[in-house]
Amino acid sequence: MVRWEPGTAERLQKAALELFATRGFEQTTAAEIAQAVGLTERTFFRHFSDKREVLFHGQQQLEQAFLDGVAAAPAEATPLEVVASALRSAAAFFPDERRPHSRARQSVIDRNPALQEREQHKLTTLATTVAAALRARGVDDLAATLAAESGATVFGIAFGRWLRDGEERSLADLATDVLDELLTLAEQAAHARR
Amino acid sequence: MVRWEPGTAERLQKAALELFATRGFEQTTAAEIAQAVGLTERTFFRHFSDKREVLFHGQQQLEQAFLDGVAAAPAEATPLEVVASALRSAAAFFPDERRPHSRARQSVIDRNPALQEREQHKLTTLATTVAAALRARGVDDLAATLAAESGATVFGIAFGRWLRDGEERSLADLATDVLDELLTLAEQAAHARR
Repeated sequence: MVRWEPGTAERLQKAALELFATRGFEQTTAAEIAQAVGLTERTFFRHFSDKREVLFHGQQQLEQAFLDGVAAAPAEATPLEVVASALRSAAAFFPDERRPHSRARQSVIDRNPALQEREQHKLTTLATTVAAALRARGVDDLAATLAAESGATVFGIAFGRWLRDGEERSLADLATDVLDELLTLAEQAAHARR
Repeated sequence: MVRWEPGTAERLQKAALELFATRGFEQTTAAEIAQAVGLTERTFFRHFSDKREVLFHGQQQLEQAFLDGVAAAPAEATPLEVVASALRSAAAFFPDERRPHSRARQSVIDRNPALQEREQHKLTTLATTVAAALRARGVDDLAATLAAESGATVFGIAFGRWLRDGEERSLADLATDVLDELLTLAEQAAHARR
């Protein structure tokens, strides 16, 4: 039976980020992370399947936030409006107080190509999940895929900007700006074709 | 000195695809691929750094095709029109006679998650390359990134459709349709906001 230890996962995450930042991701072991907060390796593995998972923990909740946003959109919303609703819901998952943690995490990922591929894959998975939810609302396959992938692109760009040094706008505001820019680009292109 | 052997890379690629399809990617060695066309492992490694590269050979030329399309766009083209030009140029890289080969390659990739991540990463790299080319044309950072990533999304979706059983339309036509659908989705969303 797994004993309930409040905050253990969070303490392990914090210690892991510090070790990854100072020693490097590759050079840090699960045992060292556990030791840093006075726990055993076995306890570490009760919370995370491996040290990489410390960085990607919470993906399921993020997916759920996107799906909640899809569900919250009115029935008559167009596909990109549904995506806008999903983005607002996902942005709420990253309140400003989480920004220092997210920045520390990103600087670890930026230094490791395999972690970058994993992070990229996360966005792809999110897009697949949102596309399925759009199809379930009756959106046709192409529109659902395009809208969902555009949503993942917007989220990825907005998230990168949210992490920039000195950036103080909320992720929700940044995502809205990036989506607006996409609509503007599309409008310019559609206009030029006429 | 590397001796010039016409068509050797192509023969190795063909043999590799057949072995990957029948035995599986993991179970096939570089030596077996070479042997299948009467060559040595050493010759294999003169052409490809590893067996995975057999599947991803040509990425540089594809990137160049995108860049040629960017360069071919008139100076006054909007960012998404430049991307449309890049897509037309890239589509020419996949004439219809290449479709059976591309289908065989895709079915190997579909069966291996690591190869899928690599394929996904290829699209990300393409987007980064196109974004840099757009910035060099004076497009601002956000518009360049968004237009380039949208282009990669459109290319990925169109390419997937091009590979479908029974699909006979050209990649250029499919990419045009997918980009048009993106413009339509954006127009609907922009319209709903007013």
